[in-house]
Amino acid sequence: MDNTSAIAITSIIMAGFTTGIGTMLPAIAEGKAVATALSSLAQQPDASSTITRTLFVGLAMIESTAIYCFVVSMILIFANPFWNHIIAK
Amino acid sequence: MDNTSAIAITSIIMAGFTTGIGTMLPAIAEGKAVATALSSLAQQPDASSTITRTLFVGLAMIESTAIYCFVVSMILIFANPFWNHIIAK
Amino acid sequence: MDNTSAIAITSIIMAGFTTGIGTMLPAIAEGKAVATALSSLAQQPDASSTITRTLFVGLAMIESTAIYCFVVSMILIFANPFWNHIIAK
Amino acid sequence: MDNTSAIAITSIIMAGFTTGIGTMLPAIAEGKAVATALSSLAQQPDASSTITRTLFVGLAMIESTAIYCFVVSMILIFANPFWNHIIAK
Amino acid sequence: MDNTSAIAITSIIMAGFTTGIGTMLPAIAEGKAVATALSSLAQQPDASSTITRTLFVGLAMIESTAIYCFVVSMILIFANPFWNHIIAK
Amino acid sequence: MDNTSAIAITSIIMAGFTTGIGTMLPAIAEGKAVATALSSLAQQPDASSTITRTLFVGLAMIESTAIYCFVVSMILIFANPFWNHIIAK
Amino acid sequence: MDNTSAIAITSIIMAGFTTGIGTMLPAIAEGKAVATALSSLAQQPDASSTITRTLFVGLAMIESTAIYCFVVSMILIFANPFWNHIIAK
Amino acid sequence: MDNTSAIAITSIIMAGFTTGIGTMLPAIAEGKAVATALSSLAQQPDASSTITRTLFVGLAMIESTAIYCFVVSMILIFANPFWNHIIAK
Amino acid sequence: MDNTSAIAITSIIMAGFTTGIGTMLPAIAEGKAVATALSSLAQQPDASSTITRTLFVGLAMIESTAIYCFVVSMILIFANPFWNHIIAK
Amino acid sequence: MDNTSAIAITSIIMAGFTTGIGTMLPAIAEGKAVATALSSLAQQPDASSTITRTLFVGLAMIESTAIYCFVVSMILIFANPFWNHIIAK
Amino acid sequence: MDNTSAIAITSIIMAGFTTGIGTMLPAIAEGKAVATALSSLAQQPDASSTITRTLFVGLAMIESTAIYCFVVSMILIFANPFWNHIIAK
Amino acid sequence: MDNTSAIAITSIIMAGFTTGIGTMLPAIAEGKAVATALSSLAQQPDASSTITRTLFVGLAMIESTAIYCFVVSMILIFANPFWNHIIAK
Amino acid sequence: MDNTSAIAITSIIMAGFTTGIGTMLPAIAEGKAVATALSSLAQQPDASSTITRTLFVGLAMIESTAIYCFVVSMILIFANPFWNHIIAK
Amino acid sequence: MDNTSAIAITSIIMAGFTTGIGTMLPAIAEGKAVATALSSLAQQPDASSTITRTLFVGLAMIESTAIYCFVVSMILIFANPFWNHIIAK
Repeated sequence: MDNTSAIAITSIIMAGFTTGIGTMLPAIAEGKAVATALSSLAQQPDASSTITRTLFVGLAMIESTAIYCFVVSMILIFANPFWNHIIAK
Repeated sequence: MDNTSAIAITSIIMAGFTTGIGTMLPAIAEGKAVATALSSLAQQPDASSTITRTLFVGLAMIESTAIYCFVVSMILIFANPFWNHIIAK
Repeated sequence: MDNTSAIAITSIIMAGFTTGIGTMLPAIAEGKAVATALSSLAQQPDASSTITRTLFVGLAMIESTAIYCFVVSMILIFANPFWNHIIAK
Repeated sequence: MDNTSAIAITSIIMAGFTTGIGTMLPAIAEGKAVATALSSLAQQPDASSTITRTLFVGLAMIESTAIYCFVVSMILIFANPFWNHIIAK
Repeated sequence: MDNTSAIAITSIIMAGFTTGIGTMLPAIAEGKAVATALSSLAQQPDASSTITRTLFVGLAMIESTAIYCFVVSMILIFANPFWNHIIAK
Repeated sequence: MDNTSAIAITSIIMAGFTTGIGTMLPAIAEGKAVATALSSLAQQPDASSTITRTLFVGLAMIESTAIYCFVVSMILIFANPFWNHIIAK
Repeated sequence: MDNTSAIAITSIIMAGFTTGIGTMLPAIAEGKAVATALSSLAQQPDASSTITRTLFVGLAMIESTAIYCFVVSMILIFANPFWNHIIAK
Repeated sequence: MDNTSAIAITSIIMAGFTTGIGTMLPAIAEGKAVATALSSLAQQPDASSTITRTLFVGLAMIESTAIYCFVVSMILIFANPFWNHIIAK
Repeated sequence: MDNTSAIAITSIIMAGFTTGIGTMLPAIAEGKAVATALSSLAQQPDASSTITRTLFVGLAMIESTAIYCFVVSMILIFANPFWNHIIAK
Repeated sequence: MDNTSAIAITSIIMAGFTTGIGTMLPAIAEGKAVATALSSLAQQPDASSTITRTLFVGLAMIESTAIYCFVVSMILIFANPFWNHIIAK
Repeated sequence: MDNTSAIAITSIIMAGFTTGIGTMLPAIAEGKAVATALSSLAQQPDASSTITRTLFVGLAMIESTAIYCFVVSMILIFANPFWNHIIAK
Repeated sequence: MDNTSAIAITSIIMAGFTTGIGTMLPAIAEGKAVATALSSLAQQPDASSTITRTLFVGLAMIESTAIYCFVVSMILIFANPFWNHIIAK
Repeated sequence: MDNTSAIAITSIIMAGFTTGIGTMLPAIAEGKAVATALSSLAQQPDASSTITRTLFVGLAMIESTAIYCFVVSMILIFANPFWNHIIAK
Repeated sequence: MDNTSAIAITSIIMAGFTTGIGTMLPAIAEGKAVATALSSLAQQPDASSTITRTLFVGLAMIESTAIYCFVVSMILIFANPFWNHIIAK
């Protein structure tokens, strides 16, 4: 396996791994936040505007960690400096 | 194993891995959100419109992480820049 | 092992892996949703129409992640671009 | 080990793996659903028709993920395109 | 190790693995269902006919996933198409 | 290691593995069922005949999965078709 | 390592493994059953005869799975057909 | 490594493994049984004779699985038929 | 594989690993904090300003650990001193 | 590595492993038993003599499984028949 | 792979590993502390000054363990004595 | 690696392993016992003498399993019969 | 890889590992202690001085185990006797 | 790798491993003990002297297991008999 292929393969593996593994727990965390929001709504319907606002801010924070992973995957596939260095050589 | 095959094989492995692993926990998170929605509905039937609206927004957020994984798999199978580079060579 | 076989073998492995692993947790999530639906029905029989409707929407969302996995498996077995490229060569 | 054997062996392994692993958690999910149905029946005997109907729909959905796995196993044993390609050669 | 032996060995391994692993969680699921049935009977003795009927339907569904595994094992030992192909050759 | 030995060794390994692993969780499931039966008896002594009858049916179902494993082990040790094929040759 | 030794070694390994692993969870299951029996006795001393009778039947069922493992170990050490075949040769 | 040593080494490994692993969970099970006995005694001091009698029977059953493991270890160290066969040769 | 490639590959692997693994648990922690905030809001709507202020400070602290990981990944991809040393040579 | 060393090394490894692993869970079990004894004493100070007596019998039973492991370690270090056989040769 | 590269690669791996792994659980711990602070605020709004002060001291202590990891990573990347020794040679 | 070194290395590894692994769970067990003692003291301050006495006996029993591990480590470092045999040779 | 490099690499690996792994659980323990302190403050604001004093003593004890790990890492990087011995040679 | 280096490397690895792994669970145990002490103080402020005294004795016992690990690490780094034997040779 020559150098070009080795770097290509590693990039493919890590792109899949980073997204596949790294978005798992944000999903769980969002599920937990949504579930608590729903039971809070059932318990205190009058506070629904505060609850949904806080929920959306929280979901945005959690989603950000999933997006870090997705960004790293996209960098590895489409803007990989090591790959560019190798194929430029 | 020549370079072309090695990249093809890696892409196949990561496509399956990313989808197979990465959609597992979003499913759990959705199950948790749906389950809480159901018990909230049983507890407070009057708030059903707020609850189902919040549920659908939450499910969409959670589904998005599963879709990141599916997108990475599809990119690896059908729009893989490393594969295109190799077979163009 | 020549290239053709290597790709065939990898496709077989990942087809089985993706479906075998990736449908496990959606099943659990559906089990959780159904279980909560049942206890909600026992607790609030009057809301049965809302509960079953929300349950079916939720099950459809969860089933979708299992179907992503099944689709990737079927693509790997019956519409694999890497395999087509190799045997076309 | 020649190519024919390698593909045969891989198919055997994945057929067993997919069914052996992939039917485990649907079984758990069904156990959970049945268990909740039983305790719901004990709690609210009057709703038994709604409960058992919802239970059977739910079991069918869960069983479907186990059946995906079984179908992939059967495809790998009896309708494997890679094996057909090799032995046709 | 020649091809015949390799396939025989793989079949033995997967036959044991599929049954040994795949019947574990159905057993747990049945244990859970039976346990809930018993505590439901203790709680609501009057509903015993509905409870035991639902229990037996549920056990049959769960047992089916264990039987899928056992069937795959038996196919691998006594009706293995790959083995038949090899020893016919 | 010649072929005969390899098959013998594999059969020994899988015989032990299948029984050793596969009977673990049925034991747990039976323990759970028995434990619930005992606490149900303590809670509702009048229903003892229904409870013990349901318990024994349940234990039989659970024991069946342990017996599948034991049967596969015995087949691998005393009625192994691959071994018979090899030593007949 | 010649064939005789390989089979001897495998038999030793699996004998220890099957007993060492396979008796672990029956022990836990018995501990659970005994513990529930004790708390049931504390809760309902009048039902002590029914409780201890059911406990002993349950312990016998659970012990049976541990005994399957011990039997397989003893077969592998003292009545191993593969070992007999090899040393008879 | 000659055959004699290989069998000696395997016996040493499995003797330690079987006892080291196999006595772990019986210890936990006994701890659980003793703990429940103590809290039952605190709850119902009048039933102390029935409780301690049941406790000792239960501990004996659980201890038996630990003893199976210890017996297999002792057989492997001091009455190993494979070792006797090798050094008799 | 020459030195340049080896360092490139290692950097790619660790960039993906650090972000993929290291942002998982901060996501969970944020999910937990958001969930508790929501149930606290439902329980004590009057304290909403204190609660949301404390929540945002806490989320910032937790997010900081995810950002450490993202920073290390970015250093490894775009400001790696070892890579600079090698390609400067 | 000659035979003498190999057996010495294996004995050292298993001596440490058996004690290091095998005494872990008895410690947990004793901790659990002691903890329950303490809370039982707090709940029912009048039964302190029965509780401490039962506690000490239970601790002795649990300690026995830790001692099995320690005994096997000591046999492997100071009374190892395989080592004696080798150095006698 | 020459010595310089080997040390560079090891440093990269451990820098990512130490930060990626070592900041995970501090994040969880902070999440737990923040969550408890929020529910304490909801329960006792009058003590908010004491609670937030204690929270910030606690977060600082926990953050310190994450910072140890980040410091070790930075030392390995930018102030590594082994790397300096090698490239000075 | 000659025999002397191999035995030295194995002894070092097992000395660290036995102490590092084997003292972990006794620490947990002691933590549990101490924690229960503290909550028992808070619940029943009058029984403090009985509680602390039972606590210290229990801690001594648990500490004994940690000490077995430490003793084995010390034997392996300072009184290792295999090492003595090798360096005496 | 020569001896100097091997020792350098091992030191780097263990420095990262010891800090990365060893500070994880102290962080969790501190999080737990802080969380309990916060809920205790909410429950009993009058005892705040005793609670915070005990908290800080406890945090110091827990932090000490994290510091042991950090100390070992620093010794391995900056005061490593084996490294000094090698480079002095 | 010569013998001297091999022993040095092993000592480094085990020193880091023993401290890194072995101080983790004592930290957790101390966290648990401190947490229970805090909630006991909140529940029963009058018993604060007995509680803190018992807490400090308990922390000392738990810390002792962490110190065993630290001692073994220090022996392996600064007073290692195997290293002394090798470099004396």
